[in-house]
Amino acid sequence: MPRQIKKIGVFTSGGDAPGMNAAIRSVVRTCAYHNIECVGIYRGYEGLMEGDFEPMNARSVKGIINKGGTILKSARSQEFRTKEGREKAHQQLIKAEIDALVAVGGDGTFTGALIFNEEFDFPVMGIPGTIDNDIFGTTHTLGFDTAQNTVVDAIDKIRDTASSHNRLFFIEVMGRDVGHIALNVGIAGGAEEILIPEEDLGLDRLVESLKRSRKSGKTSSIVVVAEGDKIGKNIFELKDYVDENMEGYDVRVSVLGHMQRGGSPSCFDRVLASRMGVKAVESLLEGKSNYMVGLLKNKMELTPLDNAIKGKSKINLELLRVSDIMST
Amino acid sequence: MPRQIKKIGVFTSGGDAPGMNAAIRSVVRTCAYHNIECVGIYRGYEGLMEGDFEPMNARSVKGIINKGGTILKSARSQEFRTKEGREKAHQQLIKAEIDALVAVGGDGTFTGALIFNEEFDFPVMGIPGTIDNDIFGTTHTLGFDTAQNTVVDAIDKIRDTASSHNRLFFIEVMGRDVGHIALNVGIAGGAEEILIPEEDLGLDRLVESLKRSRKSGKTSSIVVVAEGDKIGKNIFELKDYVDENMEGYDVRVSVLGHMQRGGSPSCFDRVLASRMGVKAVESLLEGKSNYMVGLLKNKMELTPLDNAIKGKSKINLELLRVSDIMST
Amino acid sequence: MPRQIKKIGVFTSGGDAPGMNAAIRSVVRTCAYHNIECVGIYRGYEGLMEGDFEPMNARSVKGIINKGGTILKSARSQEFRTKEGREKAHQQLIKAEIDALVAVGGDGTFTGALIFNEEFDFPVMGIPGTIDNDIFGTTHTLGFDTAQNTVVDAIDKIRDTASSHNRLFFIEVMGRDVGHIALNVGIAGGAEEILIPEEDLGLDRLVESLKRSRKSGKTSSIVVVAEGDKIGKNIFELKDYVDENMEGYDVRVSVLGHMQRGGSPSCFDRVLASRMGVKAVESLLEGKSNYMVGLLKNKMELTPLDNAIKGKSKINLELLRVSDIMST
Amino acid sequence: MPRQIKKIGVFTSGGDAPGMNAAIRSVVRTCAYHNIECVGIYRGYEGLMEGDFEPMNARSVKGIINKGGTILKSARSQEFRTKEGREKAHQQLIKAEIDALVAVGGDGTFTGALIFNEEFDFPVMGIPGTIDNDIFGTTHTLGFDTAQNTVVDAIDKIRDTASSHNRLFFIEVMGRDVGHIALNVGIAGGAEEILIPEEDLGLDRLVESLKRSRKSGKTSSIVVVAEGDKIGKNIFELKDYVDENMEGYDVRVSVLGHMQRGGSPSCFDRVLASRMGVKAVESLLEGKSNYMVGLLKNKMELTPLDNAIKGKSKINLELLRVSDIMST
Repeated sequence: MPRQIKKIGVFTSGGDAPGMNAAIRSVVRTCAYHNIECVGIYRGYEGLMEGDFEPMNARSVKGIINKGGTILKSARSQEFRTKEGREKAHQQLIKAEIDALVAVGGDGTFTGALIFNEEFDFPVMGIPGTIDNDIFGTTHTLGFDTAQNTVVDAIDKIRDTASSHNRLFFIEVMGRDVGHIALNVGIAGGAEEILIPEEDLGLDRLVESLKRSRKSGKTSSIVVVAEGDKIGKNIFELKDYVDENMEGYDVRVSVLGHMQRGGSPSCFDRVLASRMGVKAVESLLEGKSNYMVGLLKNKMELTPLDNAIKGKSKINLELLRVSDIMST
Repeated sequence: MPRQIKKIGVFTSGGDAPGMNAAIRSVVRTCAYHNIECVGIYRGYEGLMEGDFEPMNARSVKGIINKGGTILKSARSQEFRTKEGREKAHQQLIKAEIDALVAVGGDGTFTGALIFNEEFDFPVMGIPGTIDNDIFGTTHTLGFDTAQNTVVDAIDKIRDTASSHNRLFFIEVMGRDVGHIALNVGIAGGAEEILIPEEDLGLDRLVESLKRSRKSGKTSSIVVVAEGDKIGKNIFELKDYVDENMEGYDVRVSVLGHMQRGGSPSCFDRVLASRMGVKAVESLLEGKSNYMVGLLKNKMELTPLDNAIKGKSKINLELLRVSDIMST
Repeated sequence: MPRQIKKIGVFTSGGDAPGMNAAIRSVVRTCAYHNIECVGIYRGYEGLMEGDFEPMNARSVKGIINKGGTILKSARSQEFRTKEGREKAHQQLIKAEIDALVAVGGDGTFTGALIFNEEFDFPVMGIPGTIDNDIFGTTHTLGFDTAQNTVVDAIDKIRDTASSHNRLFFIEVMGRDVGHIALNVGIAGGAEEILIPEEDLGLDRLVESLKRSRKSGKTSSIVVVAEGDKIGKNIFELKDYVDENMEGYDVRVSVLGHMQRGGSPSCFDRVLASRMGVKAVESLLEGKSNYMVGLLKNKMELTPLDNAIKGKSKINLELLRVSDIMST
Repeated sequence: MPRQIKKIGVFTSGGDAPGMNAAIRSVVRTCAYHNIECVGIYRGYEGLMEGDFEPMNARSVKGIINKGGTILKSARSQEFRTKEGREKAHQQLIKAEIDALVAVGGDGTFTGALIFNEEFDFPVMGIPGTIDNDIFGTTHTLGFDTAQNTVVDAIDKIRDTASSHNRLFFIEVMGRDVGHIALNVGIAGGAEEILIPEEDLGLDRLVESLKRSRKSGKTSSIVVVAEGDKIGKNIFELKDYVDENMEGYDVRVSVLGHMQRGGSPSCFDRVLASRMGVKAVESLLEGKSNYMVGLLKNKMELTPLDNAIKGKSKINLELLRVSDIMST
């Protein structure tokens, strides 16, 4: 028989993402709706071990749905990777009479939650919050939609100056292991080429393609490069190679950086966060544990945390083809 | 045996929507990719009857992916509703040696295309372009995502002034027959109540709910109202009723209006438009006709135009529930 | 000899404007810098009479520089217009040991401050915060720059749909007594005509001008109308008149409304607010009173409150001429 | 007696800036208003020497007021620095019967124009277009206002993630020789420190200040660094120094890069560009030459090109003080 849940703790962990605040708000309000208590845990697993807790009610989360970042702060914790650290965290939860946890974060966060659950049989539920969209079990992670719009806006701006000067720009976007952001913003930003970790185009084919593009009359070009791209060691070396192997090109590099993580969440991310918060809390109340909440076929679905971590989020091959056709 | 398609015409019709230009660009470039010709038809069915055509190649659609509106213009046509009008249009297509049409628009547009196809056995393919998301056979119409972000941005701004003055705002958003925009932006904008055509809350329950919300400590409130809402004859009458039946409230109305149709399309709408253009052209090349291209379960799928028109786009009931919980 | 000032109260009053929070932050931090105390007064003169005060330090205003609205809330007060009301306010200030006031608002706010100062010889300093820019003694009021960008963004969006449909749009913007917003956004939005309170173009000349514009090949048009325009009784009557007197035009109206007051302040408004807060506090510390801080020739200057209220903020006639030339 | 001007050429040169298109539009329409011809010259001095000209009328500049970049493209030219290059340019102007030039750009552009005028007594007028605001004779160059808003928006986003993680961010903004952008966005973005070329704070004082700030309770910090800052060799070395000399800090770097040059111009820049275009053309028509149009005390004024180049644009010392007070 599932233990009865009277108090839920919520925290954010790992890289922050737009929509995390909307998710916190949703968890808090869903608890209020079901007349159970809710506690905010600061700085992820760090705050969990230190007992850095604060009771939250519907009013505590007023006016945060449109704010970027996370009011509960985030952190990465080395200590929680030790048995001692997790033991400390468990004691804090017992002391605070918290019966279950909602963890908002990426796969690092979920790995911690999974181990914690195994060791202490403590109910946990995950909400995928990361701009990279690299989690299995959901078509969209929180922040992915917003980050794409942020990046596309930046590419639009860079294109203004690129086309005024007939330049070639390499633009680095986030995505260490997966090319979701790069692939989508590349299509949306009208990029001539998109370099993603999943595909190694090869430097020669890249130069070939750029030459072809120039020949066909294009005077400026954008190449979108995911951080984790395998083609060059890094984007500056990529630039150097193209500089050396193509004539008459003025090549520039722009690394978009941390700006991509911030900003007011899009409508999509706010709605998604609201749905995920409801689903996470209500699943805990139904006695479920060890799942990640996700969006699959436009519905809220549960995926075992284990699968969410081990599964691989794959890029949509159709998009690769669309990208090729669009840069005709 | 399907006739061989060598030249495709593309037009936009009905209310414009962000992403229409990205769809035109995609149709044109997919034609170029397959080495077939493409012709832009101005002002929808009006231009079709007048032969207001222009050959388009990959360069013609340069720099339009991020532009709102439609470079091919749009119009509503009375004449095309007559047999004579359609006959004229057919003659223009024969004269220009156009073999198939891609129609970007809403159900009015598709109805015209369907009749035209029936009368002349002329290959047509539809792309759903309307901010209202009221088309069956796709989870998202072009422009829906962008419009939601535009509206949420406006609601955020109005909330600044609402909460500075402890006011109650009625905000009218688009949606004559369906409440998709209202429901999503209502959740994302943190609205206390959402009034949609699909549901008649009743004036008394609305006032009741607002009083409860005030009692619980909220000092400012947002009520999102879809154009087609059935509760009051119009938003100003709604305001008057609440003014009369609640004390101590400073009630205001804001009608967001046509601004909702414009603006640079979101990343999502640009990618969707690019995918739909590819699918529409390639489906015609495969000999298919009389379908609408749509996004179903994150894949491009075809729905017979007939079903797209007659089917009903239903609101997600889960969202209604999320909205209730969030306004706890 | 000026009394020594050890504690300053700050409040916002009248219509809210972007930049008010940045001004509050600046007042609070300038007080901290000079080691004097600062007290936030809620809901303008209402809170002043009720003693709705809160001590503020540098940390209290963290993270508000980029927020629209006002964290101190605003209100209009009838009671403060009475001698009794002002007496109550004075007692509250004595009780809280507040030595001087910084009032952020428009001319209604300043009139209150002026009378209060006359009656109780209480040091007051004004900061002009209103999007209308209708205050004498400063080239820019707080919020004016932000509001212009908000409106121009909306006009750009409306133009997308106007030009897709060959429509004529009347767009109403704020400005009951002055046409500053209308004149600037009209030029920036590429409006064909701009109707402002300072100038009565006359309905016939408007229609004449629109006909000429259509003749010259323009297929869509934007007319920007200030709320306080004298040409028609209201914007809907204006539309009706044009509808009746021009053929072949599809005329629409958009009233931008309260959205214009909100949003994150522009860089200009944030810097201006920061400068004004410093100047207001330091002027009080220098023993000055009864002035409004303003931007004149890019410098912070003081204008007697009396003049700020009675003086008239005039539109720049050069802009009228530029507008005429641009709509050639 | 000034020669009669019947045809004016306009071009953009040097780094592009938002508002350049609005300036081109204004020049073209002011010519149309005065019934003289206007010719667009592509790619700055390069196109001038090649005769890459295009006649422009009011319709040619339709819909560009809100576009970033420059439709006339820009370039830097080595050849125009030679007597032969300028001779070629002069011949092209004679051939095309162009009587005067309007040059939109920065001091490199104006230097070219000045020499060209001296050698051929050819009427020239300059419009200051550069985001850096480093031109003497105008309080604002075209693009400066827009760039500031772009940067502040990026800083707001970075602050979301900085404050979620208690990080210190070094953010590099444009400004090789002057700190105008850095100083303003630093204040507007709530930066703890602002490093500009005009002032060498010294590394030790920077570290001292950051330590003080951390001690006072700030858990995250933003330091805005102008490209041309003299404190460290570059921003990455700066980061390394702080990393080594401060404990417990997670330091990150973000270089905003070319994004700062693009985007739709702000209302201010559009109006300024419109005013400058009118003033430039009408000054030429009055027989004036060799001036730069500028905004001084909110009026359009002329400054001899010579002074504009040799003069120095100075930062506002009041802003330095405001910045110090705000980071209390």
